[in-house]
Amino acid sequence: MAEVRPSPPVLRVALLGCGVVGSAVARQLVEQADELAARAGARLELVGIAVRRAGRRREPGIDPALLTTDAEGLVERADVVVEVIGGIEPARGLLLRAMAAGASVVTANKALLAEDGPRLYAAADAAGVDLYFEAAVAGAIPIVRPLRDSLVGDRVERVLGVVNGTTNFVLDRMDSTGAGFEEAVQEAQSLGYAEADPTADVEGFDAAAKAAIIASLAFHTRVRAADVHREGITGVTAGDVAAARDAGAVVKLLAICERTAPTGDGDAEGGVSVRVHPAMVPREHPLAGVRGAFNAVFVEARSAGSLMFYGQGAGGEPTASAVLGDLVAVARHRVVGGRGSSESAYADLPVRPMGEAVTRYHVRLEVHDRPGVLAQVAQVFADHGASVETVRQTPLGGEPGGSAALVVATHEAPDAALAATVEALAASPAVLGVTSVLRVEGT
Amino acid sequence: MAEVRPSPPVLRVALLGCGVVGSAVARQLVEQADELAARAGARLELVGIAVRRAGRRREPGIDPALLTTDAEGLVERADVVVEVIGGIEPARGLLLRAMAAGASVVTANKALLAEDGPRLYAAADAAGVDLYFEAAVAGAIPIVRPLRDSLVGDRVERVLGVVNGTTNFVLDRMDSTGAGFEEAVQEAQSLGYAEADPTADVEGFDAAAKAAIIASLAFHTRVRAADVHREGITGVTAGDVAAARDAGAVVKLLAICERTAPTGDGDAEGGVSVRVHPAMVPREHPLAGVRGAFNAVFVEARSAGSLMFYGQGAGGEPTASAVLGDLVAVARHRVVGGRGSSESAYADLPVRPMGEAVTRYHVRLEVHDRPGVLAQVAQVFADHGASVETVRQTPLGGEPGGSAALVVATHEAPDAALAATVEALAASPAVLGVTSVLRVEGT
Repeated sequence: MAEVRPSPPVLRVALLGCGVVGSAVARQLVEQADELAARAGARLELVGIAVRRAGRRREPGIDPALLTTDAEGLVERADVVVEVIGGIEPARGLLLRAMAAGASVVTANKALLAEDGPRLYAAADAAGVDLYFEAAVAGAIPIVRPLRDSLVGDRVERVLGVVNGTTNFVLDRMDSTGAGFEEAVQEAQSLGYAEADPTADVEGFDAAAKAAIIASLAFHTRVRAADVHREGITGVTAGDVAAARDAGAVVKLLAICERTAPTGDGDAEGGVSVRVHPAMVPREHPLAGVRGAFNAVFVEARSAGSLMFYGQGAGGEPTASAVLGDLVAVARHRVVGGRGSSESAYADLPVRPMGEAVTRYHVRLEVHDRPGVLAQVAQVFADHGASVETVRQTPLGGEPGGSAALVVATHEAPDAALAATVEALAASPAVLGVTSVLRVEGT
Repeated sequence: MAEVRPSPPVLRVALLGCGVVGSAVARQLVEQADELAARAGARLELVGIAVRRAGRRREPGIDPALLTTDAEGLVERADVVVEVIGGIEPARGLLLRAMAAGASVVTANKALLAEDGPRLYAAADAAGVDLYFEAAVAGAIPIVRPLRDSLVGDRVERVLGVVNGTTNFVLDRMDSTGAGFEEAVQEAQSLGYAEADPTADVEGFDAAAKAAIIASLAFHTRVRAADVHREGITGVTAGDVAAARDAGAVVKLLAICERTAPTGDGDAEGGVSVRVHPAMVPREHPLAGVRGAFNAVFVEARSAGSLMFYGQGAGGEPTASAVLGDLVAVARHRVVGGRGSSESAYADLPVRPMGEAVTRYHVRLEVHDRPGVLAQVAQVFADHGASVETVRQTPLGGEPGGSAALVVATHEAPDAALAATVEALAASPAVLGVTSVLRVEGT
């Protein structure tokens, strides 16, 4: 007699959004249906795809009968809601409604998590459902789960991330071809690596949202996008990139999340610094080798030491991989019980202002080529408590007396002191111009 | 009125083994007690440490009152058992006893998992407890959880891992100093990177156990250490390393787990090839940059594309980081319910013999320097169905006629065909000697 196996349960999956990622998710749910069912212990039935306009042409493999403009109705008849719309509203309202109705949530929405994560966590806790978001940071690269679970028995000291593929592509092109910023952005646009309006990427908004999520997980502390000091790459010049090259380094837009030393009374635990800015990274650092639109996250933990996670940070298929991994995890919980991790914000460390962050600067100046100038410049550093590590002076020639290039690398100091030093240098009569200022990380 | 918080529950943790890893785990359980309690939702109370001999001197920070030689009694009074003894017995008997008594298990025991994993999974399922083992593969690097959970919605095509720090250190030294195998092993021993008896590392046993675990997770298929084709690095010569360098490559001991193409009837899914052997890796491949005793695992998945996980693969503190991460995860399940993933072996793909693996060879020969030799050598390749990609001939001078070095790189072919080619070359009258044979991966 043939063995009669019970059919696996069926979970209703609602998909919000049908762009590049949503289409890939929808397609994989069909193409890999048997594999996913075997792994999840339940069949994942796509019951609807919420879109803004029903009539638009869709990618092949999307069943038009699943499309609906009634997102609110859709989320109430799902066991799991996958959100790939992005932005704050209507995503937030839909996810809160979904969880209130008992659905678990898988989202790729970094902006929403970085803006209002605690509210989503609270809704998940109240409903006893899962809130998963691996796809929100660095696409296909597992980084949320490693921080949330793998490293939960360790003390993360620092995370340095190349988490925006567009800016990494642009800076990589500037490094390898000598192109200026505008030219590299145009190339990125023509290849589909940058949006027609690249603001969210090049001004660092995207990376700042990811930095907030990473810092929240790594330090068990609520960090919002608004808490993140943010500088984009629009001010990075071909001269900056060349200065970095001369110093054996590359320029990367880094998301930096690190613990800061205790400052004294009532601050025994110290705080955290969370920031996004361009920085020089020595070529021998593993992050320097992250080329093109790839992403990588470098983690320093007390026991684990240095770890790096590397891969594709964006794109429909890679992001769908992360979404589907979460979907299977959430489905397993539906089948066998249990829930993933809730919010962990018990440490509640203060987020320190940028001025207190301990950084190092690499400054390139043009100065008068005459005796005493180096002493004058050195005095400006000393006046601001900034200690010089190396100086290199190169005559540039020119009119009587001529000018010289002065490249100064500092020791570590509070960022405010270094920023004030640069301001004072610009105003110093010995200095003709400050031609490049970059922070240095990863040394 | 002050808020009255309920005290968190207490979980009893039993530690089996008090070597380098066990000591680090015991110390962290004390030093980080408050942090771990906040993250796990329960206090983790170390109730005993099973050791073979009670009288031995221990590292500082280990409470002697916790030491016991009664491991069997200890596991029966624990909620979670952490096993860092290694080897098959008594570890297996103790873990089975622990799970039967209702304890969850965290283990770093790659040999046991690769030998008898399914039995452990079955015991965990029967008891409804967790079986976690992040520390069994690549120390602190999260790779078990990413394969088991993050990539579970994707199709892993291939995993290439540098998963043994000792052999990577040895090969790296041979590459950077030109040292021979014996000399590099002695250096590794003097620095503590290799055991007095380095067999388990240099013969590839350690890497083979890890390959079995990785392949089982990646392909949802049971793979035991005995199924893994294994070649160590004892046969790698300074000449091989130099030949690799000339070819713009480095020699790495790789754990390779990959899907194989369907062979025909009744094999629609194809199979898997799981093997450990030295291979030439081009210097531009991310794995080539893994220096010293570091580990890295490179994953190719259908949707996610290429991912790499990099970090410290061994050592007390890094391994303890992975153990403690698992311990917190398991503790959370004790507190809020649920369980981690069970065994996933539904795909049940056949493990193909080494001869069927598709590989590429890089062969260095010494031949008579006379007309017609190249044709003779090429004929040997052709006779075995091995297609030549490049040949480079260099006269070596010497007696009348003299000799020449011939470096041949093949296209992909079944390993059996390439191995037979090398055997035939060695027997060919045109060939004075086969001086180096290396497989090529990562191109």
